[in-house]
Amino acid sequence: MAVRAAVAGASGYAGGELLRLLLAHPEVEIGALTGNSNAGQRLGALQPHLLPLADRVLEETTADVLAGHDVVFLALPHGQSAAVAEQLGPDVLVVDMGADFRLEDAADWERFYDSEHAGTWPYGLPELPGARAALEGSKRVAVPGCYPTAASLALFPAYAAGIAEAEAVIVAASGTSGAGKAPKPHLLGSEVMGSMSPYGVGGVHRHTPEIIQNLSAAAGERVTVSFTPTLAPMPRGILATCSARARDGVTAESVRAAYEKAFADEPFVHLLPEGQWPATASVYGSNAVQVQVAYDESAGRIIAISAIDNLTKGTAGGAVQSMNLALGLDETTGLSTIGVAP
Amino acid sequence: MAVRAAVAGASGYAGGELLRLLLAHPEVEIGALTGNSNAGQRLGALQPHLLPLADRVLEETTADVLAGHDVVFLALPHGQSAAVAEQLGPDVLVVDMGADFRLEDAADWERFYDSEHAGTWPYGLPELPGARAALEGSKRVAVPGCYPTAASLALFPAYAAGIAEAEAVIVAASGTSGAGKAPKPHLLGSEVMGSMSPYGVGGVHRHTPEIIQNLSAAAGERVTVSFTPTLAPMPRGILATCSARARDGVTAESVRAAYEKAFADEPFVHLLPEGQWPATASVYGSNAVQVQVAYDESAGRIIAISAIDNLTKGTAGGAVQSMNLALGLDETTGLSTIGVAP
Amino acid sequence: MAVRAAVAGASGYAGGELLRLLLAHPEVEIGALTGNSNAGQRLGALQPHLLPLADRVLEETTADVLAGHDVVFLALPHGQSAAVAEQLGPDVLVVDMGADFRLEDAADWERFYDSEHAGTWPYGLPELPGARAALEGSKRVAVPGCYPTAASLALFPAYAAGIAEAEAVIVAASGTSGAGKAPKPHLLGSEVMGSMSPYGVGGVHRHTPEIIQNLSAAAGERVTVSFTPTLAPMPRGILATCSARARDGVTAESVRAAYEKAFADEPFVHLLPEGQWPATASVYGSNAVQVQVAYDESAGRIIAISAIDNLTKGTAGGAVQSMNLALGLDETTGLSTIGVAP
Amino acid sequence: MAVRAAVAGASGYAGGELLRLLLAHPEVEIGALTGNSNAGQRLGALQPHLLPLADRVLEETTADVLAGHDVVFLALPHGQSAAVAEQLGPDVLVVDMGADFRLEDAADWERFYDSEHAGTWPYGLPELPGARAALEGSKRVAVPGCYPTAASLALFPAYAAGIAEAEAVIVAASGTSGAGKAPKPHLLGSEVMGSMSPYGVGGVHRHTPEIIQNLSAAAGERVTVSFTPTLAPMPRGILATCSARARDGVTAESVRAAYEKAFADEPFVHLLPEGQWPATASVYGSNAVQVQVAYDESAGRIIAISAIDNLTKGTAGGAVQSMNLALGLDETTGLSTIGVAP
Repeated sequence: MAVRAAVAGASGYAGGELLRLLLAHPEVEIGALTGNSNAGQRLGALQPHLLPLADRVLEETTADVLAGHDVVFLALPHGQSAAVAEQLGPDVLVVDMGADFRLEDAADWERFYDSEHAGTWPYGLPELPGARAALEGSKRVAVPGCYPTAASLALFPAYAAGIAEAEAVIVAASGTSGAGKAPKPHLLGSEVMGSMSPYGVGGVHRHTPEIIQNLSAAAGERVTVSFTPTLAPMPRGILATCSARARDGVTAESVRAAYEKAFADEPFVHLLPEGQWPATASVYGSNAVQVQVAYDESAGRIIAISAIDNLTKGTAGGAVQSMNLALGLDETTGLSTIGVAP
Repeated sequence: MAVRAAVAGASGYAGGELLRLLLAHPEVEIGALTGNSNAGQRLGALQPHLLPLADRVLEETTADVLAGHDVVFLALPHGQSAAVAEQLGPDVLVVDMGADFRLEDAADWERFYDSEHAGTWPYGLPELPGARAALEGSKRVAVPGCYPTAASLALFPAYAAGIAEAEAVIVAASGTSGAGKAPKPHLLGSEVMGSMSPYGVGGVHRHTPEIIQNLSAAAGERVTVSFTPTLAPMPRGILATCSARARDGVTAESVRAAYEKAFADEPFVHLLPEGQWPATASVYGSNAVQVQVAYDESAGRIIAISAIDNLTKGTAGGAVQSMNLALGLDETTGLSTIGVAP
Repeated sequence: MAVRAAVAGASGYAGGELLRLLLAHPEVEIGALTGNSNAGQRLGALQPHLLPLADRVLEETTADVLAGHDVVFLALPHGQSAAVAEQLGPDVLVVDMGADFRLEDAADWERFYDSEHAGTWPYGLPELPGARAALEGSKRVAVPGCYPTAASLALFPAYAAGIAEAEAVIVAASGTSGAGKAPKPHLLGSEVMGSMSPYGVGGVHRHTPEIIQNLSAAAGERVTVSFTPTLAPMPRGILATCSARARDGVTAESVRAAYEKAFADEPFVHLLPEGQWPATASVYGSNAVQVQVAYDESAGRIIAISAIDNLTKGTAGGAVQSMNLALGLDETTGLSTIGVAP
Repeated sequence: MAVRAAVAGASGYAGGELLRLLLAHPEVEIGALTGNSNAGQRLGALQPHLLPLADRVLEETTADVLAGHDVVFLALPHGQSAAVAEQLGPDVLVVDMGADFRLEDAADWERFYDSEHAGTWPYGLPELPGARAALEGSKRVAVPGCYPTAASLALFPAYAAGIAEAEAVIVAASGTSGAGKAPKPHLLGSEVMGSMSPYGVGGVHRHTPEIIQNLSAAAGERVTVSFTPTLAPMPRGILATCSARARDGVTAESVRAAYEKAFADEPFVHLLPEGQWPATASVYGSNAVQVQVAYDESAGRIIAISAIDNLTKGTAGGAVQSMNLALGLDETTGLSTIGVAP
């Protein structure tokens, strides 16, 4: 019996990537597809890479259209998910790819998103301590942000193992698809090709409290985070370069051991052999995460670096992974650890 | 019962793409992987995107290593396939991804490749008239060149329908992976990013006689071809802009009809709706071909444009498609028409 | 005594490039800078690469603001130049970087631009036969389109020498800045990086009649042109791959001679040594044109390829070159033939 | 009276950029150009963007060839400069663009470069405290590394003002030209386009001791540095994202004041208006440095970000700037603060 899935927001980058993955998922049947300004258009004009869905037509995002599915994915602008979710009933699995239900602290939400907090749902990053159990059988899933996925996977092992001081510095480079499909001057190809630039500097990026939440939970204490996102001239991928001061007594061996333990049974996280470093090209279109870690004795810091595809593991792949857990399917169903390279 | 496949030349771009596709093929089990200068190395160091094969080690390309497989793929430098193929016996399916067995005319081979002609095998572009039947059950397959794949699919319908004069002009832009993985100064990222440049101008590119062979067969007469390849600042993809003088009496409708007829039952060729044009991004990592055609009445020419992924449909995907036919499997087994975009 | 120059439309890509060149021009003093939606903004926010002008503020585009200059450059959307030019008086040099005054045939204008023809001004491509003399001392200049610059320079020598049939095929790849700075979905970095795509196929691009006009004038007869523009994943540059059937009796030597003659005294056109081909990277930010030509005897065609920077020689550099001629300055004043590479 | 300049190593990226700048320098006449493996070749084949020098032929790098110049620039592989410099005599200005004479501590040199220390020359980063005076009239100049230029300019004001703890974290993204022109597999366009990857992680990059040297001198105490370089998919540019813990009592105002003071009279460093952030595209081909700084109160860190062109300010522009000082010319002669964008 197929799982029938609807996608609200099928015309954007997150929605398109989700459809790409669902088309390859053996248990899923794709149901309603909705857009708002694009309702009525052929998907072939909006997502020309999704050839098997070319003749599907987008509908409006209404409760009626989304009714009658086993799973509803919400790829909507921040702040719009709660109203839709309410209408879907408690028995439908709702996977929110927006930010609305990620944060536990209502004050954080209000400060960074300037609106009322809608609540907190099980957090769709199964690799974090305790997260997998909360997702199994759940009817609600909050898909993590792309930067928090990359940064948390890079650093939580150090905090879980108690080898890092509670003060992290994260500099991440993202491909442009993370900024979405709405045309803005600074996202033009003419502007981004050949250029690296930072944005949201100084702790003001909305993913900051989410990273703090994840690392603090792993550490058992409040972790201070300096997070700087940068825009890189590539369509996809996040490279997160993270570091934290090492606690006294830390050695290269104890660092390596912490990471080996954290990822020993993880199907999607690949701790690279020593000497090999992550590259976003290696995880292009894949749900895999490449992680490597080093201990810089001279600087006294643990350096952990991760590479993900921001649209796959960072958004739509993470959503499918959590859906699998929520539905009781094998966690890896329909998800690949093979990138498209070069 | 799984088809056991060996890949000779697993460290290059063609070999890597082939492995990416074979990993997703439900009937294939990956056997021996060979390299030459790379023999003894872990595949994880050479093809880090192929996570499930990371711990496989390359062997030397010898008859012993390649023995005992149902299919042997040869991704070797031009001129090396014949010697290997001879040792494999007539019952093994040999799929040659090099140029050695593509050309029918020994004189063409000698002029363009400056060595002795090894022979001619069934040509692995099933969409060409008569090609599919020759591939079914065959034990030998010559995989087409990437440019000939793109150009022939764009123009053969016009020749098969008798609507074009026997004189074609083809300008194609290719991603850099078409030039291979051997490091050369003009292929450095610093050189190719931000630059378009032609090469092999004036009919001297080795794919020229192959394009002529395909179009002439469709036309039933010798077609003259002006072919100019250009290097584009992208890793993958070919956009082939092709045109030919229209015969008297041709109309926009007769042109469209010729293309609709040619591709009506083709699972991988997508003749786009009128008004939509191909883009290489739409077929990134996919075996699909986007084609569009127009009749420029003022210039008196038929303009046909195709987009492929040079490594997928243009090399490894074409190889798997032909393997499927040769083995009696469904032609589309293990091949996707879904691109990775954006 | 400095030449005082105003720039109407200083916030776009053409205006920005013009300012970059005028800043390096020893005879020019930069006067009023105007924008429309951007009036009142600091140039430092709009053109952050023009550091010496960072604190200049854009004014509205009015006759009062533009009055009192020796030269006024118009970098306005098509159709807006005539109204502004009328108000400037006959003694001011007006250099129009839009299309309004390029075409000689009013019917062509009306068909391609769907509005009333404003007139025809001396055409700012001095390398064309007769063009230089018309520009010397002129008070009005129509700067050519970027594609017509590249294509005409590649092919006019063949027509001027009478060695080519009156039927040309042109496929050109352009960087994205040619499409301007107004944000549109298909121009997003996420869309253009990694992709080649055609547009305006089948003779409908507005630069088609301009190319026909130039080549026909050189040929002394109407030249039919098939022109296909493509969008390449780079910010700047045009590579124009052009060909025409060779007339009877043409040889490689006669082709080379025609081109050597055409460009013998041209300061900006560099006919490359035989065996070397143009690359857009070599003319990045430069007013130079790289040209190479070959005679493909087998196909019976002359292949001529040019590379320019679409914003420099293709727009703003061409404008300055014509300004120099109009003002009686040395044609090369303030213009460089040195590219920024790699 | 022109300054006669020779360039040893004219075929590489640093040498090519230097020639681009020297061609625009009003006081310099370009003399001998040398290469080693490339001796005897036309520069037009090696540096096709330097049109005015196309017919110059490279000579061998010998003392005889380099004799008779006022300035000799050495753009040689690390470790080769000392032997050449010795033969040039004390009255010739020698500007070493390699690493040989940058480090003050012989032990640092031996640890990172694994050879004998050749000595220490005046350090060519005039913006550092005290550096300008040491360069004026000097006959020897050690041009800084590209990363140390970007990182030191971003952070030294915080250390000079005593507002930062002696522990810095630097993550920098560089264009591929920083890795040179020698072809290596990981630098192929196919590999770098679409990918971000780190290298030299954990304090092992050779620029680490140079950054420490500069920041420690500004701080008056040993500064610990965690430095991670990453390779970005662009030909040029460095974006250095740097941070350091703020000392007690620091405020946003005191941070801003420290940077305004440090750069008040600097012709090439542009402290951006608040709210605007650096972008490498804005300094493409320019000797300008864009800097911005923020105080992240929540994380307790000062975040300083700089953008340079690694080949211009980061190498050849810095070399010319120092040459100007050494020769008693105006420091800005022949150097531009105008970038080529978009």
